Amino acid sequence: MANPFTSIGLIGKHQSAEVAAALVETARFLHERGYHVLIEAETASSLGNCAPFPALPYARLGTQIDLAVIVGGDGTMLNAARHLVDHDVPLVGINQGRVGFLTDIPRDEAQERLSEILAGDYQEEVRSMLFGQLLRGDKVLTSSHALNDIVLNKGDLGRMIEFRLTVDGAYVYTQRSDGMIVATPTGSTAYALSANGPILHPGVDGIALVPLCPHALTARPVTLPDRCTIEIELLPGHMADVHFDGQGRIEMLPGDVLRIQRAQRGVRLLHPRQYCYFAMLREKLHWSALPRG
Amino acid sequence: MANPFTSIGLIGKHQSAEVAAALVETARFLHERGYHVLIEAETASSLGNCAPFPALPYARLGTQIDLAVIVGGDGTMLNAARHLVDHDVPLVGINQGRVGFLTDIPRDEAQERLSEILAGDYQEEVRSMLFGQLLRGDKVLTSSHALNDIVLNKGDLGRMIEFRLTVDGAYVYTQRSDGMIVATPTGSTAYALSANGPILHPGVDGIALVPLCPHALTARPVTLPDRCTIEIELLPGHMADVHFDGQGRIEMLPGDVLRIQRAQRGVRLLHPRQYCYFAMLREKLHWSALPRG
Amino acid sequence: MANPFTSIGLIGKHQSAEVAAALVETARFLHERGYHVLIEAETASSLGNCAPFPALPYARLGTQIDLAVIVGGDGTMLNAARHLVDHDVPLVGINQGRVGFLTDIPRDEAQERLSEILAGDYQEEVRSMLFGQLLRGDKVLTSSHALNDIVLNKGDLGRMIEFRLTVDGAYVYTQRSDGMIVATPTGSTAYALSANGPILHPGVDGIALVPLCPHALTARPVTLPDRCTIEIELLPGHMADVHFDGQGRIEMLPGDVLRIQRAQRGVRLLHPRQYCYFAMLREKLHWSALPRG
Amino acid sequence: MANPFTSIGLIGKHQSAEVAAALVETARFLHERGYHVLIEAETASSLGNCAPFPALPYARLGTQIDLAVIVGGDGTMLNAARHLVDHDVPLVGINQGRVGFLTDIPRDEAQERLSEILAGDYQEEVRSMLFGQLLRGDKVLTSSHALNDIVLNKGDLGRMIEFRLTVDGAYVYTQRSDGMIVATPTGSTAYALSANGPILHPGVDGIALVPLCPHALTARPVTLPDRCTIEIELLPGHMADVHFDGQGRIEMLPGDVLRIQRAQRGVRLLHPRQYCYFAMLREKLHWSALPRG
Repeated sequence: MANPFTSIGLIGKHQSAEVAAALVETARFLHERGYHVLIEAETASSLGNCAPFPALPYARLGTQIDLAVIVGGDGTMLNAARHLVDHDVPLVGINQGRVGFLTDIPRDEAQERLSEILAGDYQEEVRSMLFGQLLRGDKVLTSSHALNDIVLNKGDLGRMIEFRLTVDGAYVYTQRSDGMIVATPTGSTAYALSANGPILHPGVDGIALVPLCPHALTARPVTLPDRCTIEIELLPGHMADVHFDGQGRIEMLPGDVLRIQRAQRGVRLLHPRQYCYFAMLREKLHWSALPRG
Repeated sequence: MANPFTSIGLIGKHQSAEVAAALVETARFLHERGYHVLIEAETASSLGNCAPFPALPYARLGTQIDLAVIVGGDGTMLNAARHLVDHDVPLVGINQGRVGFLTDIPRDEAQERLSEILAGDYQEEVRSMLFGQLLRGDKVLTSSHALNDIVLNKGDLGRMIEFRLTVDGAYVYTQRSDGMIVATPTGSTAYALSANGPILHPGVDGIALVPLCPHALTARPVTLPDRCTIEIELLPGHMADVHFDGQGRIEMLPGDVLRIQRAQRGVRLLHPRQYCYFAMLREKLHWSALPRG
Repeated sequence: MANPFTSIGLIGKHQSAEVAAALVETARFLHERGYHVLIEAETASSLGNCAPFPALPYARLGTQIDLAVIVGGDGTMLNAARHLVDHDVPLVGINQGRVGFLTDIPRDEAQERLSEILAGDYQEEVRSMLFGQLLRGDKVLTSSHALNDIVLNKGDLGRMIEFRLTVDGAYVYTQRSDGMIVATPTGSTAYALSANGPILHPGVDGIALVPLCPHALTARPVTLPDRCTIEIELLPGHMADVHFDGQGRIEMLPGDVLRIQRAQRGVRLLHPRQYCYFAMLREKLHWSALPRG
Repeated sequence: MANPFTSIGLIGKHQSAEVAAALVETARFLHERGYHVLIEAETASSLGNCAPFPALPYARLGTQIDLAVIVGGDGTMLNAARHLVDHDVPLVGINQGRVGFLTDIPRDEAQERLSEILAGDYQEEVRSMLFGQLLRGDKVLTSSHALNDIVLNKGDLGRMIEFRLTVDGAYVYTQRSDGMIVATPTGSTAYALSANGPILHPGVDGIALVPLCPHALTARPVTLPDRCTIEIELLPGHMADVHFDGQGRIEMLPGDVLRIQRAQRGVRLLHPRQYCYFAMLREKLHWSALPRG
């Protein structure tokens, strides 16, 4: 098979000296092997002078690369995925600390694993993403993608919020709680897991609804088919915040509707050949850990 | 559309005078409208003399009917589904008490809803089932279908059991626990829910692994794609029981392997036109119930 | 036994026409029976002209009454308890809607139950309260009582917070989570229950630590003896809010310490003779509700 | 202070060569220092010939020693506690593997810690125990102590059981579930923790009721004051097993009543000076373990 990769974008966690060093090293490694290396603009600015590699903002970077290598943690990967999803660029994640759920190549194996992947020896996996819109009447106030989750949270007042949830237009429930996590399978091992949500294997075509501290004891996480449309309407007298992959903070007012669907495209992840989802779960969730002797 | 139903099988909960009365009434109602009515043999024997309706065992009944009407509770429905799954006969469930998760027609609406369904006015839904085999070396000791769940349970000794679980041959974990519930979306609102399992909408192509009192605090329910093969091997020194839909009790010895896959066919359920999964959940889980005022 | 009550304070939920009517009615009822009736000042202002009953602020009210009758919901009761705890005045709660956990006399039985209680026919129970101080270095920034709980919550940024918790000076853990609920037995059926905390019978001398969405899967609620001192120090880079019984919102900065102990006095509740804690739990938690048929 | 210990009983896990070696070593260590060493009879029989140390059954051993040293795991300790509770003998636990919740001296520190304890340098703690009686009409069928828990479990049939629970004669609820764990604070970190029970610090005067897979979603663990009497009556048509500290298996029939109270005496544990309950929790529950990076 002809080498599918010629132009490679590098993206890193900002303001981290350690990541900067790893990025420069990776850039040189790729450059020496004849790849065209580009750096994401904000990443580049936190690297200082790292010519001769051109720096491009995400919107242009996405059109010019056929592989993105992310150095950092899962947060960096989430951010890159949201920016690149429309360009159908595959992502490879190199972790700076221990292995992450998404950044599954440990730093000390980075060059070896990258070489294998560049040689076409990898597993490709498409992870579904969410697309969320905040609607006020007929107007779309905000819209964004999320690879992990879209979270509705009680706002500053610190009081429970009340909202009405429908699925494909069918009424599901009116809930009083601290909020709601709407998670992809990828997000099911992130924040949703802290809220007692179910782990969903990435191969499950589902979206999890995980309530935060629900008032009713009979409220339970529910997994829906990922082809459905979820709408959450904030009821009168309540204020909330909306977060996409834990980013930003968008204010939601009474009557506003948060509409969530699976994004049209998922993000393509390239894993090393020996990657195994269950091995990663065991490692990250300490499944060998036995609590009592 | 031509009437799709001509021969109708009646199946009921055994040894219940109340169900017997409802069954006889339903049989007459159908007979008067010109349908050919057959009664499942064990059901018939608990009805006493109910000529002129012929009584047939499941294996023959399944070949001669194009609709099965079940009167009783969800347990009766589970039993009928296991017996009829190979015959591709659609099922309709009439509940004797309140509405069940599966028997979604309340008794006092039975004739009205049945008339609508027989007139072709219904929603059809295919619910996936499990197929489980208990293997000892090369030998299949038992195999059975389940619509709700296949449960591995610590046996008489009352001690935790230890087993090794793989998915498509990949090692997942070695678990010490009271057992494991392997549930379909249909079963996710049954026993699995008591064990803190996730609710899976029937449209989700998933199988839930729900551990029973796991020794490790990091053990969590996991939902797998329903196209995978799950194998559970009981480790040396442990004894367990296996239950299909809460039935029977099959002894599992050390080294035995319980292999579970989605069954090749699902069961066809016919719901009334106005049936709504979420309305049923609300009703059954008391989602309007607010615990604190 | 001589009548122990002569001066009675009335306290009600503010800005509720329905509560105002019930308060005026209760005031007349007591006045006609020869009791000296006083009204809490803010309550009085939301009643309008309700002479001849004098209105007093909590600080003076507490010194002049030997019984407080609260009309409203549990929130009104919590508020009264915090204001009156230093005066050792017993409280009686009349609910406006359904029965509350604390306001255990339903409105339509109010006069009958009050008459019994005023005649000395009641159960007295002392409920322990918390006393919390927010410390910055040597300085006490705020201190307050709480009957339900003191809650540490992630602030505006919406990110997990990190804090270090000690008990009587002994290090317990460093936790990353959305926050921590420190609850009395009374509070164990309030917000803490939504966060999967344990129910503590009011007779248990314990304080519950209930983490909110903890990052570590092995974090679990812990109940401590109520004679211990709990200190929570917010770690560098984190901002949090502190709430006493869901009130106010006090900002906590890195290095600040939240010190929590059982308050020196508990609050005295007077229940009708037939009051039963378990009956109240059954009613409020819908323990008769069976989820599956 | 005069040396409080002169006669020391040794108790070990049976049928373990490793434990046997440690026991013989400990016996010699104590003998050389002038202590009178006695061995529990069953322990002795699994040691083989270990003269010159006399072997005594528990009933006599308890009357002749003023300290018991247990070598093994928490199960061995539980067993010793039940046998010795009436003799008020303090216990010291030496673990064979990692540290246990109760056997808190690691093997490689055994002689050093024992020397300190024998010199009077220790922390003494009294752990409350349960006393349970199985009643059939007026007859006590069985009675036993438990340091961890008394468990009511569905029996062989594998079906949910139904029982009626009262506290000090007051009706609490009728529950359908797989069973009920009644746990001491000591037991709150054992089986009860697997069933999502609350951790109770040993200083809390409470008893935890932890349902096993309850049918009702609103069922939650409840902690009661440890001065109350709990009675569980098995309802008609149900069979159950009762276990004391996971031992034995006593059959419970419909109408039988399981009555549980705090035992009149607790068991005295001697810990090394540096023992800390929270440090032990952190170690056993892996509280340093962060699931996500």
